[in-house]
Amino acid sequence: MDRRTFLKAGAVAGVGASVGGARAFGQEAPAVLRRRSDQTVRLGFIGVGLRGREHLRLALHRDDVHVAALCDIDPDALARAQALVAEAGRPAPPVFTGDDYAFLDLLAMDALDAVIIATPWLWHVPMAVAAMRAGKYAGLEVPAAVTLDECWDLVDTYEATGVPCMILENVCYRRDVMAVLNMVRQGLFGELVHLECGYQHDLRHVKFNDGRQPYGGGVEFGEKGFSEAKWRTLHSVHRNGDLYPTHGVGPVATMLDINRGNRFVSLTSTATKSRGLHDYIVKQAGPDHPNAKVRFKLGDVVTTVIRTQNEETIVVRHDTNLPRPYSLGFRVQGTRGLWMDLNRSIYLEGESPAHQWEPAQPYLERYDHPLWQRYAARAEGAGHGGMDFFVLHAFVEAVRQEAPPPLDVYDAAAWSAVSPLSEQSIAAGGAPCFFPDFTRGQWMKRRPAFALDGMG
Amino acid sequence: MDRRTFLKAGAVAGVGASVGGARAFGQEAPAVLRRRSDQTVRLGFIGVGLRGREHLRLALHRDDVHVAALCDIDPDALARAQALVAEAGRPAPPVFTGDDYAFLDLLAMDALDAVIIATPWLWHVPMAVAAMRAGKYAGLEVPAAVTLDECWDLVDTYEATGVPCMILENVCYRRDVMAVLNMVRQGLFGELVHLECGYQHDLRHVKFNDGRQPYGGGVEFGEKGFSEAKWRTLHSVHRNGDLYPTHGVGPVATMLDINRGNRFVSLTSTATKSRGLHDYIVKQAGPDHPNAKVRFKLGDVVTTVIRTQNEETIVVRHDTNLPRPYSLGFRVQGTRGLWMDLNRSIYLEGESPAHQWEPAQPYLERYDHPLWQRYAARAEGAGHGGMDFFVLHAFVEAVRQEAPPPLDVYDAAAWSAVSPLSEQSIAAGGAPCFFPDFTRGQWMKRRPAFALDGMG
Repeated sequence: MDRRTFLKAGAVAGVGASVGGARAFGQEAPAVLRRRSDQTVRLGFIGVGLRGREHLRLALHRDDVHVAALCDIDPDALARAQALVAEAGRPAPPVFTGDDYAFLDLLAMDALDAVIIATPWLWHVPMAVAAMRAGKYAGLEVPAAVTLDECWDLVDTYEATGVPCMILENVCYRRDVMAVLNMVRQGLFGELVHLECGYQHDLRHVKFNDGRQPYGGGVEFGEKGFSEAKWRTLHSVHRNGDLYPTHGVGPVATMLDINRGNRFVSLTSTATKSRGLHDYIVKQAGPDHPNAKVRFKLGDVVTTVIRTQNEETIVVRHDTNLPRPYSLGFRVQGTRGLWMDLNRSIYLEGESPAHQWEPAQPYLERYDHPLWQRYAARAEGAGHGGMDFFVLHAFVEAVRQEAPPPLDVYDAAAWSAVSPLSEQSIAAGGAPCFFPDFTRGQWMKRRPAFALDGMG
Repeated sequence: MDRRTFLKAGAVAGVGASVGGARAFGQEAPAVLRRRSDQTVRLGFIGVGLRGREHLRLALHRDDVHVAALCDIDPDALARAQALVAEAGRPAPPVFTGDDYAFLDLLAMDALDAVIIATPWLWHVPMAVAAMRAGKYAGLEVPAAVTLDECWDLVDTYEATGVPCMILENVCYRRDVMAVLNMVRQGLFGELVHLECGYQHDLRHVKFNDGRQPYGGGVEFGEKGFSEAKWRTLHSVHRNGDLYPTHGVGPVATMLDINRGNRFVSLTSTATKSRGLHDYIVKQAGPDHPNAKVRFKLGDVVTTVIRTQNEETIVVRHDTNLPRPYSLGFRVQGTRGLWMDLNRSIYLEGESPAHQWEPAQPYLERYDHPLWQRYAARAEGAGHGGMDFFVLHAFVEAVRQEAPPPLDVYDAAAWSAVSPLSEQSIAAGGAPCFFPDFTRGQWMKRRPAFALDGMG
């Protein structure tokens, strides 16, 4: 099956195919990509800041990837990316820069199979949609989308073009998380009942790390340049909700088979007062600094509770403005026991001493996921404890084999929808807000796919 | 100030005095209690099951308490209680038994200052109301009330009679919890932002421990008699909500000055499917046991998120049907750092190594609460790690000194209200439900009292 056949098959019979007439398939035919005998994936990079360059660095370690193009509006980031390519002894790729829409020229290239998109959040969907329309596999950083309409844009474009889009949620590949997924699938926790997760990461130094930026200006320390402080902090000024849910929600969604026999039904979200970012500015730059007048809408801790169709609950925390150690706060609980990462402990009825925690590590080793067993050596040295290797590997393999990615556009939409829905719920005083069914009912037919085919 | 003067003063100027005319004070005059020179507290016990006997045992260690009466409908419990009194070399108290309302005869005694009520939940409010009406201080086990109207009954009766009612929430006195309260009050966490707590306790052996009872019948193991399986399990059959919130909510309420400059505003509550209790019956007694047909309404894990007037959030978990180690899951987080009990760790900005947890124990020792420093030796051997000593001590001291108890009827009402409100929220698909202001606005004037006077 060549790519064209695959894309067509995907559009007609594939997962998530629209069964209504409103969004017809094939309105825009997928670009014809030439299948080449060497199977090298020709990969373009849109956004080569800190995150994009991490993907680039890993791609340069792979002999099945050709770095086909680079794109960024920041000359410094581009220069660093070009240097990485040169250091790897690879040919210098064409570079696209100069204005915000230079990425469209990159996407118009013929000799390109796929792109990695690692840009500010508000660019994610426009770029992913353009990539799919151009017939290029889109590997999209998290969160995939910011609004509910954007979530639909991803789904609609995939269904119209048949070109896949994979959400690059690396935490799905964390070694302990995958071992626990393995245990879940082997039934060690019984039937799953309650899960917890979140993003609890003191980002104050990230949100204020660039003297030139409007909301970081004057609180001058950390990295200079086109940093996250330029664009990320804006979301903390204007939005109150879980701004960054997928590191937690993605892994638990794979365990709960979300969009594949299960789905997110609704959530409630509650935010605390906002103190941390203002306090940080005052402490760093004094009460008279202009930024001390900024009113941040983002509550310091946002707690979201999701209900699923199969009656599990998921607690999701967002906690990025206060001093604290990093923790994603996983908890996976079923009818036979539970695992928690905060205390690195597990309890399994009939195995653990009654009513007592056991160290999780022996279990995590015993149930180490086959993917990790296979690729641990190659993952060594990759970012975030190796999991960055796996998420790129899964994407590259999907492109190379012209296969559906293990984390798809429906996952991207459902997971990212947590943000706008949590904003709605908070604005409505905690009222339950309901997830669109982005699969249009196909979740009843779709089967689990993540990390089941040996590739990712 | 004798008791009569106190009661009068309490009714006229005291905390929580009704400012509306609807509920006039003094409609029922408090009983005239004779102040005696020896200051011995004449204490009656309504309910001498497992919990009541624990209070009795501690009371018998005190030379400032006279065990004045015992009441129970279970002959076995009564006999055990009488034996405890005899073993302590104390005079045999009068005994009230024979029917459900025997406690009214106990309350009619003249030579009685106060009662400890440790009975099935549905009896708590009728008995506490009768005690206050009879002019006897009421020490009431948790949860104080089951419905919102019952919460109001406690408040209204207190305001009508001026006779105090203390909720006997022992976890408020847990040593680590009090050390953290001490740290909170000294500002070590900065301004509080987010707290977590709960009741995570595998109660399956408690809910099914008596062969004679309808819902434990035939699943025959554990203690026989008038056990909790007789009455407690009924709540799991019929109710879906946080059935037992005060062990978690009480301690965090003291830290957040609830009803004293702050108050609970609203909550949302979400329940999982119900699996654990049915599975347990099947595993213990087989699928053909009649109890395998019981449909338990209580979700296995109930997650509640409370918002306060001062914009903190509180996550409260209820998790009593699944195999798991015991944990109340405390988290106390402010603008300067946080403590969690699950990993026995703390992080304080500027003190802890950046982004790293520290063991909590050295802090818990350094900030050991003055009450614990003073009474640790006397608390030794008391139930639940010593905290049972403190809650009884505080109650006895309040009665002896004719003073308001440190945990009062407004605390009892607000904390217990979490249960019916969580039931409402779950029934309404997670809709936010609003706390009555049981203080009728007096929370703006009331000042923190818990553990501030050296007595409790």
